[in-house]
Amino acid sequence: MELTINSHEFSLSHNGHIILQHNENNPLVFVGVGEENVEMYRGNFDIEDYLIERVKLDLTVIEQSNSVVNLNFDNQVEIKVSINEDKATLDIKQINNALNRFFIRVNSNKEERFFGLGEQMSYLNLKGRNFPIFTSEPGVGRDKTTYITWRSDVENKAGGDYYNSNFPQPTYISSNLYFLHLNSTAYSEFNFKKDNFAEIEVWEVPSQIIIEGGNSYFDILEKLTDYFGRQPELPDWIYNGLILGLQGGNERTFRLLDETLEKGIKVSGVWSQDWCGKRVTSFGKRLQWDWVFHKEMYPELPAKIDELHQRGIKFLGYVNPYLVNDGELYKEGKEHGYFATKHDGSDYLVDFGEFDCGVVDLTNPKAYDWFKNEVIKKHSIDIGMDGWMADFGEYLPTDDIKLYSGRSAMIEHNNWPVLWAKCNYDAVKEDGKLGEIVYFMRAGGAGSQKYCPLLWAGDQSVDFSLHDGLASTIVGALSAGMTGCGLSHSDIGGYTSLFDNTRTKELFLRWAEMSAFTPVMRTHEGNRPDTNFQYYQDGDCMNKLARLVDVYVMMKDYIKDIVKENAQKGIPVQRPMFIHYADDNEAYERQYQYLFGPDVLVAPVHESEKTKWEVYLPDDIWVHLWSGKEYTKGTHEVDAPLGYPPVFYKKGSKYQSIFENIKEKHA
Amino acid sequence: MELTINSHEFSLSHNGHIILQHNENNPLVFVGVGEENVEMYRGNFDIEDYLIERVKLDLTVIEQSNSVVNLNFDNQVEIKVSINEDKATLDIKQINNALNRFFIRVNSNKEERFFGLGEQMSYLNLKGRNFPIFTSEPGVGRDKTTYITWRSDVENKAGGDYYNSNFPQPTYISSNLYFLHLNSTAYSEFNFKKDNFAEIEVWEVPSQIIIEGGNSYFDILEKLTDYFGRQPELPDWIYNGLILGLQGGNERTFRLLDETLEKGIKVSGVWSQDWCGKRVTSFGKRLQWDWVFHKEMYPELPAKIDELHQRGIKFLGYVNPYLVNDGELYKEGKEHGYFATKHDGSDYLVDFGEFDCGVVDLTNPKAYDWFKNEVIKKHSIDIGMDGWMADFGEYLPTDDIKLYSGRSAMIEHNNWPVLWAKCNYDAVKEDGKLGEIVYFMRAGGAGSQKYCPLLWAGDQSVDFSLHDGLASTIVGALSAGMTGCGLSHSDIGGYTSLFDNTRTKELFLRWAEMSAFTPVMRTHEGNRPDTNFQYYQDGDCMNKLARLVDVYVMMKDYIKDIVKENAQKGIPVQRPMFIHYADDNEAYERQYQYLFGPDVLVAPVHESEKTKWEVYLPDDIWVHLWSGKEYTKGTHEVDAPLGYPPVFYKKGSKYQSIFENIKEKHA
Repeated sequence: MELTINSHEFSLSHNGHIILQHNENNPLVFVGVGEENVEMYRGNFDIEDYLIERVKLDLTVIEQSNSVVNLNFDNQVEIKVSINEDKATLDIKQINNALNRFFIRVNSNKEERFFGLGEQMSYLNLKGRNFPIFTSEPGVGRDKTTYITWRSDVENKAGGDYYNSNFPQPTYISSNLYFLHLNSTAYSEFNFKKDNFAEIEVWEVPSQIIIEGGNSYFDILEKLTDYFGRQPELPDWIYNGLILGLQGGNERTFRLLDETLEKGIKVSGVWSQDWCGKRVTSFGKRLQWDWVFHKEMYPELPAKIDELHQRGIKFLGYVNPYLVNDGELYKEGKEHGYFATKHDGSDYLVDFGEFDCGVVDLTNPKAYDWFKNEVIKKHSIDIGMDGWMADFGEYLPTDDIKLYSGRSAMIEHNNWPVLWAKCNYDAVKEDGKLGEIVYFMRAGGAGSQKYCPLLWAGDQSVDFSLHDGLASTIVGALSAGMTGCGLSHSDIGGYTSLFDNTRTKELFLRWAEMSAFTPVMRTHEGNRPDTNFQYYQDGDCMNKLARLVDVYVMMKDYIKDIVKENAQKGIPVQRPMFIHYADDNEAYERQYQYLFGPDVLVAPVHESEKTKWEVYLPDDIWVHLWSGKEYTKGTHEVDAPLGYPPVFYKKGSKYQSIFENIKEKHA
Repeated sequence: MELTINSHEFSLSHNGHIILQHNENNPLVFVGVGEENVEMYRGNFDIEDYLIERVKLDLTVIEQSNSVVNLNFDNQVEIKVSINEDKATLDIKQINNALNRFFIRVNSNKEERFFGLGEQMSYLNLKGRNFPIFTSEPGVGRDKTTYITWRSDVENKAGGDYYNSNFPQPTYISSNLYFLHLNSTAYSEFNFKKDNFAEIEVWEVPSQIIIEGGNSYFDILEKLTDYFGRQPELPDWIYNGLILGLQGGNERTFRLLDETLEKGIKVSGVWSQDWCGKRVTSFGKRLQWDWVFHKEMYPELPAKIDELHQRGIKFLGYVNPYLVNDGELYKEGKEHGYFATKHDGSDYLVDFGEFDCGVVDLTNPKAYDWFKNEVIKKHSIDIGMDGWMADFGEYLPTDDIKLYSGRSAMIEHNNWPVLWAKCNYDAVKEDGKLGEIVYFMRAGGAGSQKYCPLLWAGDQSVDFSLHDGLASTIVGALSAGMTGCGLSHSDIGGYTSLFDNTRTKELFLRWAEMSAFTPVMRTHEGNRPDTNFQYYQDGDCMNKLARLVDVYVMMKDYIKDIVKENAQKGIPVQRPMFIHYADDNEAYERQYQYLFGPDVLVAPVHESEKTKWEVYLPDDIWVHLWSGKEYTKGTHEVDAPLGYPPVFYKKGSKYQSIFENIKEKHA
């Protein structure tokens, strides 16, 4: 990082690219005052700002001593820029306390690309668009031109848009080889619409911005995860096969497990989301949000888990940080005063869709400990669970909620998923089970890198739509990877079935064939199991699924190594092609292809009724997994019948024998 | 108007209500700089602003001499406030030339109501919402929750929203009994969302704001139309019956006229929109935009018009200020250089939906005169026309268009409908036909009051939807009336049929029964005549229509008097109940009822499948037109079968015999 200053000008550069600057024509900082209006409906937020003032600041005083520069802007804010090799830390001090809006410009140009901002489901390259950062439901449809989005908007305010995400994070990586992190959990926007600058808006004067340059994407990813922490390796049992999402009580769940095993489908674990009981709403089958095993549906569950363990099969459950107000745990929590309240002290209940829940106040250390010890440890870990979906985290309301921390809900909102992740992390860590137990989350924020061992891509629609179907999970995994979360996976076949949109066998199999080339394979029956395709209804599908799971299991040694690379260096398991081929323009343009580790290139078929698929291959010799045919750099059309996704490995890979064995057995 | 000033404070009051103020807690003026991005697609505008700065100004110098106060705001802008009795004129001087955004706050409170802003189709009371002022297509559907709006948005960017209007005008009337007019044609927004102030945003520093108080709505409407001018009286022939919208060439048009007359339907005129020829597009039947009578479709049209005149029937045509690039007039205009061009001098053609047109540069006096003389006079007036639809005016593009005036298209855009109205006005006036010829327009702006003798409500959807169907024409007429345009009417049965939405007989008749209580009755076959209900297909409907037209004709003496009141004092023909009942809260709340002159109250049935209808009657004795039953103040349910709209007249009205005759003949 290089600093240049003179009397009233300032610039910060990396490798000859200006990142920040202030001079007569290029102001750096604007400040202002706004009045926001934020309304939540079931995790979907309607956010409006009335911007009362926004003022460009002059740089009035510059002082330098060694590698630290103090910049005073009109006596409104002061920024101390400290340089340490490739890292610049901007410590920002608010002088005028009336300010609640802060804007900083980052120099850019038309060609620059930006990646990350957490798990972005629609766009990997962020240039040209504006991205609000506020964790929420991602939306059903997420594309205002589709019927499903429109119906979701009209009926549930739930259509969403390209930027809505369970896991947005104010951190990006630039193609000019640096990362920038806004150290604030306030609502923010990253506006990349302008050619010559990006503008970051924050609804507070943030305390800090971190910028760190590198000499490659690898270098930057390593530095970024040095800062945020890294996801640990996955336990070995993950690679034994598929995690089966089943529900419906003891009899049904374990009968379907047996039927699955009988068909030769390798199973690593059973994931039972309704271990705690169920609740039927107009949306579909939902759960009893009282995180205790359900004595009628799953009698003697601990003994059943033991029995599974003896068969080499794991058991996973489901928990989230809310408690339904007709449950046992709610009663206990309320007696202790562990729920957030309204400002007048009365109960604050959140509507989760035809049932109401208390918000466990995770900012209260006693409530946090109670949930960690008396809920997660006692009722999940202690009965032998090997993991769970640690769902939600996005629903902290912002209107009239009083938190123990004394901080406003607008500030805690984006922090909530991280607090929630940490609560799980602490429970597992204190029980000595880190690296054994796997909980997976959809919500996230800065810190999820350390506290969340596995992402899942949330609740996709059961279709091939770009913004909310199979394809969106690819973009989600890649952008999360560029934000330091390199372990992600998704519900095979998607989840949300609404407005007569139902899962087909084709969708299920296309999703499964992609999932074989992700770190974890897991099924989900979806929100309306009875009206959607399920693999266990169809013998042919079970055979095909067995084969795909076997392909995944055969890659175990390869996957373990790339998962280790993620744990050690923050290099994501599913990675954009350009991190290996940084000079290849086309490698940046193909957001629906990825490298699965360094040696495998995957181009999932994300449209229906295809038997061929166009693939772009960067400059190497690539061996087509199923035919063994070799390809060089360029665009190629390859055969891609169901079960045979376009997958290539690098010729000469040290794992070549694995891929040859797969071809021999399964081509 | 009262001014109060001290060293750094200022206020302007009327009748004890503060209208404008500046003090420590209530800043008056903000200024700033913005970069807009405006894109047009077929008259629908996508408008986005990047607000770079917005600064609250201090009132630094106040000087008073007699009834003039000079306010200097931070040496950025200066406002000279001149008081003349109930009128305050704010002359605004821009000192800092870099500014292109201006914001002024108007004091308000929760209870205050605002009306006007031109022809607003969705909301009569504007409080609580933000209204951009930029003439455009109003949208098809205009309600994001409807399927038609969504389809229109997706397929044509044409769904629109509550504020989109052909005729928005930056002028409102407050329930605190004053009007405010922003004397600027720049893009502006009137934001009434906040309880305690309204904020007006203008995309220039405007030269002037006029505020004038009164002691009643009547007083204010008279003052408002003193300022803008007034619509003249309608010619007597209007009241002879229905204006028949027919098309399809000589044979079809005049055959349908005869069939209509044979059924006893009184006809005042034939309106032939395709006198100039037609063009079939995917939207439906459209016109040949070359404003010359079509020699094949209407051979010897002038002689035909003569013949009609001898039968006591008028003939109306159609003109708009664009010329299709394959027409004769385009060729002539282009030779003279009368079209607006791109900045590089090349042709600027506008896509009007599968055909392209030149924009006659009305800011060029020669082009203006040419269009007035060689197009309107020569080809319309001289062949004997008695009127025409003077369509469009909203489509001045803003991206790369060079105008003779040298002013930017962003400034000329809102002025275009007024220039267009004036061009018609001058043609008619110079030919000595003011008060004889009636042209009717949908587009408008400040000045339409004088230059446009009759509004029509634009292209409603053929349905009962609140925001784009029958009901919306009521709100449109009432808000236009509150902006000084008290003569409006609409296409009986609506116009736009898309996405399988088609006109029913019921809709046609409900619309016709309302139109009998508006100044003008006129039919339209719509954009897809063949697939929509037409009155001439159905004998029963023709009988019912004949009866409704007769009701209208029987009211001639009454209607003439209320039209005269509009011409003399600016009191609209269709008027909100509250202008007569200013203290009646409920009278403000019912935007789908109106007074038709002082003595008739109309509550059109604007939903389908109704036989009864709820009516609110203010404090008087009201006689139900069809039953003669008397009602007093309150909410009543009355019978409202097809053909018998809920209409009441004031007991003791001097026109009572007219209404009694109608009852006798038609009840």
